[in-house]
Amino acid sequence: MAPAGRPGAKKGILERLESGEVVIGDGSFLITLEKRGYVKAGLWTPEAVIEHPDAVRQLHMEFLRAGSNVMQTFTFSASEDNMESKWEDVNAAACDLAREVAGKGDALVAGGICQTSIYKYHKDETRIKKLFRQQLEVFAWKNVDFLIAEYFEHVEEAVWAVETLIASGKPVAATMCIGPEGDLHGVPPGECAVRLVKAGASIIGVNCHFDPTISLQTVKLMKEGLEAARLKAHLMSQPLAYHTPDCNKQGFIDLPEFPFGLEPRVATRWDIQKYAREAYNLGVRYIGGCCGFEPYHIRAIAEELAPERGFLPPASEKHGSWGSGLDMHTKPWVRARARKEYWENLRIASGRPYNPSMSKPDGWGVTKGTAELMQQKEATTEQQLKELFEKQKFKSQ
Amino acid sequence: MAPAGRPGAKKGILERLESGEVVIGDGSFLITLEKRGYVKAGLWTPEAVIEHPDAVRQLHMEFLRAGSNVMQTFTFSASEDNMESKWEDVNAAACDLAREVAGKGDALVAGGICQTSIYKYHKDETRIKKLFRQQLEVFAWKNVDFLIAEYFEHVEEAVWAVETLIASGKPVAATMCIGPEGDLHGVPPGECAVRLVKAGASIIGVNCHFDPTISLQTVKLMKEGLEAARLKAHLMSQPLAYHTPDCNKQGFIDLPEFPFGLEPRVATRWDIQKYAREAYNLGVRYIGGCCGFEPYHIRAIAEELAPERGFLPPASEKHGSWGSGLDMHTKPWVRARARKEYWENLRIASGRPYNPSMSKPDGWGVTKGTAELMQQKEATTEQQLKELFEKQKFKSQ
Amino acid sequence: MAPAGRPGAKKGILERLESGEVVIGDGSFLITLEKRGYVKAGLWTPEAVIEHPDAVRQLHMEFLRAGSNVMQTFTFSASEDNMESKWEDVNAAACDLAREVAGKGDALVAGGICQTSIYKYHKDETRIKKLFRQQLEVFAWKNVDFLIAEYFEHVEEAVWAVETLIASGKPVAATMCIGPEGDLHGVPPGECAVRLVKAGASIIGVNCHFDPTISLQTVKLMKEGLEAARLKAHLMSQPLAYHTPDCNKQGFIDLPEFPFGLEPRVATRWDIQKYAREAYNLGVRYIGGCCGFEPYHIRAIAEELAPERGFLPPASEKHGSWGSGLDMHTKPWVRARARKEYWENLRIASGRPYNPSMSKPDGWGVTKGTAELMQQKEATTEQQLKELFEKQKFKSQ
Amino acid sequence: MAPAGRPGAKKGILERLESGEVVIGDGSFLITLEKRGYVKAGLWTPEAVIEHPDAVRQLHMEFLRAGSNVMQTFTFSASEDNMESKWEDVNAAACDLAREVAGKGDALVAGGICQTSIYKYHKDETRIKKLFRQQLEVFAWKNVDFLIAEYFEHVEEAVWAVETLIASGKPVAATMCIGPEGDLHGVPPGECAVRLVKAGASIIGVNCHFDPTISLQTVKLMKEGLEAARLKAHLMSQPLAYHTPDCNKQGFIDLPEFPFGLEPRVATRWDIQKYAREAYNLGVRYIGGCCGFEPYHIRAIAEELAPERGFLPPASEKHGSWGSGLDMHTKPWVRARARKEYWENLRIASGRPYNPSMSKPDGWGVTKGTAELMQQKEATTEQQLKELFEKQKFKSQ
Repeated sequence: MAPAGRPGAKKGILERLESGEVVIGDGSFLITLEKRGYVKAGLWTPEAVIEHPDAVRQLHMEFLRAGSNVMQTFTFSASEDNMESKWEDVNAAACDLAREVAGKGDALVAGGICQTSIYKYHKDETRIKKLFRQQLEVFAWKNVDFLIAEYFEHVEEAVWAVETLIASGKPVAATMCIGPEGDLHGVPPGECAVRLVKAGASIIGVNCHFDPTISLQTVKLMKEGLEAARLKAHLMSQPLAYHTPDCNKQGFIDLPEFPFGLEPRVATRWDIQKYAREAYNLGVRYIGGCCGFEPYHIRAIAEELAPERGFLPPASEKHGSWGSGLDMHTKPWVRARARKEYWENLRIASGRPYNPSMSKPDGWGVTKGTAELMQQKEATTEQQLKELFEKQKFKSQ
Repeated sequence: MAPAGRPGAKKGILERLESGEVVIGDGSFLITLEKRGYVKAGLWTPEAVIEHPDAVRQLHMEFLRAGSNVMQTFTFSASEDNMESKWEDVNAAACDLAREVAGKGDALVAGGICQTSIYKYHKDETRIKKLFRQQLEVFAWKNVDFLIAEYFEHVEEAVWAVETLIASGKPVAATMCIGPEGDLHGVPPGECAVRLVKAGASIIGVNCHFDPTISLQTVKLMKEGLEAARLKAHLMSQPLAYHTPDCNKQGFIDLPEFPFGLEPRVATRWDIQKYAREAYNLGVRYIGGCCGFEPYHIRAIAEELAPERGFLPPASEKHGSWGSGLDMHTKPWVRARARKEYWENLRIASGRPYNPSMSKPDGWGVTKGTAELMQQKEATTEQQLKELFEKQKFKSQ
Repeated sequence: MAPAGRPGAKKGILERLESGEVVIGDGSFLITLEKRGYVKAGLWTPEAVIEHPDAVRQLHMEFLRAGSNVMQTFTFSASEDNMESKWEDVNAAACDLAREVAGKGDALVAGGICQTSIYKYHKDETRIKKLFRQQLEVFAWKNVDFLIAEYFEHVEEAVWAVETLIASGKPVAATMCIGPEGDLHGVPPGECAVRLVKAGASIIGVNCHFDPTISLQTVKLMKEGLEAARLKAHLMSQPLAYHTPDCNKQGFIDLPEFPFGLEPRVATRWDIQKYAREAYNLGVRYIGGCCGFEPYHIRAIAEELAPERGFLPPASEKHGSWGSGLDMHTKPWVRARARKEYWENLRIASGRPYNPSMSKPDGWGVTKGTAELMQQKEATTEQQLKELFEKQKFKSQ
Repeated sequence: MAPAGRPGAKKGILERLESGEVVIGDGSFLITLEKRGYVKAGLWTPEAVIEHPDAVRQLHMEFLRAGSNVMQTFTFSASEDNMESKWEDVNAAACDLAREVAGKGDALVAGGICQTSIYKYHKDETRIKKLFRQQLEVFAWKNVDFLIAEYFEHVEEAVWAVETLIASGKPVAATMCIGPEGDLHGVPPGECAVRLVKAGASIIGVNCHFDPTISLQTVKLMKEGLEAARLKAHLMSQPLAYHTPDCNKQGFIDLPEFPFGLEPRVATRWDIQKYAREAYNLGVRYIGGCCGFEPYHIRAIAEELAPERGFLPPASEKHGSWGSGLDMHTKPWVRARARKEYWENLRIASGRPYNPSMSKPDGWGVTKGTAELMQQKEATTEQQLKELFEKQKFKSQ
């Protein structure tokens, strides 16, 4: 493991970003721990921090080894509205786990909050801010290094989160799970960015819901919005590790494959190296991932940007650059794969000749980009779902 | 975790199989730990058991929770020819880790050996058997519950392994990494099975190299070979969790995507439930997986066969059967995914519209099954690789 | 063949459209006759009208039988700049052939001109209008029923064409080969429509370059442009019979498959029925096709709109509606295909498992719709082509 | 048109083949004329020869121009069992049309018969041979140059046809519509070939039902069967112009796309050049096509084998070899397509991102080659069709 010095000696998040350093985020917790058996899909809550701390610690360790400079507390949805009385213990235990692992390398601890389950029904600012404040109090007590407000579909709620968090005096990063068309009320990315920075966020960007390509388009729009408003902030991106060219504006949630059939969309390490380079070129300096990002994807970011950063992550001791570990294989055609050009140009197959390459999202409101493709598909399912929706509404009254 | 009693009280592997129980194997170690940052692709050796025991222990735990009844020692290629002086410590530590985790549930410890790096150059029976015996001595000292000889491409070497292992008096399982066309010398699966049973194996089957569908075809041929010879053995399958309809007879090694671009081929949990059912219907009772099998894939076997076995695995506390965890989702079209028919019939997309669905294997000797498809592809790469091969030969002299 | 009466008795094109009739155009001449051996790809000139009049007459007959109400003279590119001295004979012979076949059914003769080869180098209005006038003089002499100016990439040149043609006193239709992004100088479809109508066109729309879905999007924008300007014109669409979701703004010319590998993109008769219905619903009343439209595609338009028009075309005597001709097949599963639902919902396969579903266009300037997908592809070819382009420029100086 | 001399001066079919010449067959009549509006799918009968002789003559002319050396009479299914009293006129008119066009170039006239509609219900040799003899009498009267018995699914019926035809003293060619698994009673291709030659056929091979690749595999098996039996015959292949890697043993009839959704499977001219070369290399000297073969596909055979034959076909005056007609295009990236390597290596896209690349055939009895792929698909449709089949059986009693 890379030498680290005392935790107190670590440079803060803003110090790093202001000096031009690349900060590597971490990856997927909910989806990854679902596959390992510790998170329930549908609930998506982080009770594993108290039920199976070893499993959570191990995943933190893997991201640290892969090059992450941030151990984000596994506190997604760990608010009172989702977890009842358990919420406080979960937040505290998550902070301890993150701090323990961060201490073993050059990583900071970030306390994380996300959108509430309430906003879509009641835009009740007081109640929602109270939920945020409850989590913040634990983070303050556990003295996290900075704060992340992430996974917001509506900029108004994200702004409430930022307003709550800055009261702590700690740096605040804010990311929205939106695409180039903006938030679910139609606020464009550039305006979202402006509002977040005006509310006090020092770092802004996107996370989740879309693939790296689409997410960087969104970050670019945010950047342009800030420039037009003569505002400054550091840029951050933590996209999916799934290919989602066929998403609508609500992202991968509406893809028919979510969440149990996303396998063929998973990015390779080479896809992620490409993403890391493009993010860097766009000026993003906080580069990480969200759902689907396994430790080897984070390592791919660290390896791609090793020339700029000057070092490789610990886990690269188990990885040859661009497949170089294959150069001793007994078969010549496997040895021939030990080079950059091979992996950059390979069009990898799905092994699924009966399946299409694109899906039509469920729900409504496809993006302009995919709208024309969508028209080729029958409306059956959509109609059926609309009918289902009507029925459900009556049931829930 | 399921109650277990004293290790000594556990039923042995043959006792279980003879009484008709389903024994669930474990999944992928090399490939999974490569993605977690602890194994180097190309070398594929298990030094992680001494370098990072927590990471290996955690993976054992995940398979145990998922329903595995076997903790196979992580000793693949851990023989003197591959690991020099380290080999002995690695074998011993791997046994300890497997035993520690097995003690937490209803699982046995299996000592595992595989084909040597020597056979393809020198069919030196004495030297090869010595390598097998060295590993066996550690397994005997650590008192594993039974032995697995796996990943053999040539039945002759597999027979040598079985002959060596049965000296221990412990039950021996033997699996070959072959497809329906047989071993690399052309010995058909039925004859391979006969030779392995005559050599003393109690359990025979296949592992690695091919997808579940192709692997079960091979097991079927083995079964028919035994029946024709009036021999009896328990059947075992531990296939890949990758779709490989386009493999040649050397399996996924020759696919151009191996090992860093296999993502779009990964099986879903639903694919694996289908596999578990088909294996069961064929009479296979030792059902597990090999490369690509993550804990959730093993859980899928345990869930599919829960009606026959009478219980669910511990990790099912975090999994709703057939997506039922989605039935509370706020969106009606996501709720609509909470049912068996949905996931069974969904043709999942790759999100990669510029990529093909099938690849042409590198190397030579495609299977009859894919031969005709192959003819549609240009011979360029193959020719280039042959030339490369010639060059390499001269270089290595 | 449907009864027709004297040619003089036929209703004119505007009479038909103003009374709300659907006018069915014809289909592909250049591409279809290339496949039959009478047109050279690359040149794309109609010398076949004098070299092989039987072949051209036969194709006119097939479209007439399929339901076409317009026999467009096969005079594409038959201007002096492309055909030298031959141009006059070709135009005259083409008129005679069109008139001969039109006389056998309920069809009008339309004289057709298209963009010149000159405009892209010299925007020389005088010279270009002279070329148009030369063709017009032959059309006037042969007394065609109306005129079509088609396949214009720049609205300025299209306006010049319309200005020239209206001098004849005959109705003028004008179609551009553009997509939703507008002409190659960036003039949006709505504005193109306005300029064409102001220049004197009675019928406006699009032809060629894009698939039916994209083409109807463009016609919709034209319609909205006219409405906004409080102008009126009849709408016309003659798209490709190829699926082109992956086109850039220059349409199918830039697809790597153009023109010798377009086969897998060809629309089925059912795709065309869908197109006919959508065109009708949009208010288009002159509905035909361009490259790739074979006689059976035109028949599909006539069959889809038979309820509105009140009759089937002659060629329907050889076609059962929605596959009903299969209902006597000896195999039950083939009989099961004799119904609308079957063909509407079938996702037809390409039989090409090594090929992608989408291509990346050559050239520059991709549409917004495909831009994001494009980013997934390597820039190699584009870069190579840019270099090639630079070299060619120097060579041609 | 190539000089031809008197018909009487032409070399006969056997003379040509025995001297080592390549004889180029013709292409698709039923499917091509269906698309042109003159044949009804489902019936598939050739009444067009009397109803629309111009359309049939034109297609003959196109094949002649493309290089065909054989004008096969358009008499498929023109026997009394399918056409009642019309059959005799149809056969006579078809002979006249074929002779008229053959006289304009270097082509022979072949009288063609095919399997009856009776054999599958009653293996009534007397009645079936009588049907063949009726057609033969017309062919004798019209003095065709040789005879073709084609499209037989059962070798027994094919043998009856050959036995009937040889009574005329004219050379007899016999082709079966089978794949590598043999006829529908399971007689392997090699044995089919032996029986046909023993019955008197001078030329044997396959036509229809499978793509070029699979068809040549079948011809190879026929050739090996003849060699093993020390028999000699000339080899002939007339496959589909559709890619059908996913067929079962009954060929493209059982594909869900048959007959109205086969578009994406159509071979390019380059695919056919490859086929022509492979057929030639296998020793096939009568090389033509069946359903889907348009004139440009036949021209592709003639162009590929022009070096061996010493001349190009007339229609090559309208075709640049390997796309060379594009070398004057104004766009550099289109000019870049004017070369062999470009078209040989291009993986052409379908433009259908929601569609699979392979289909599962309806019906039963998939080939070994596709069996494993098939297992990935749900049995629903098959089951439904079985039920339908049962119902139909009761209805028809």
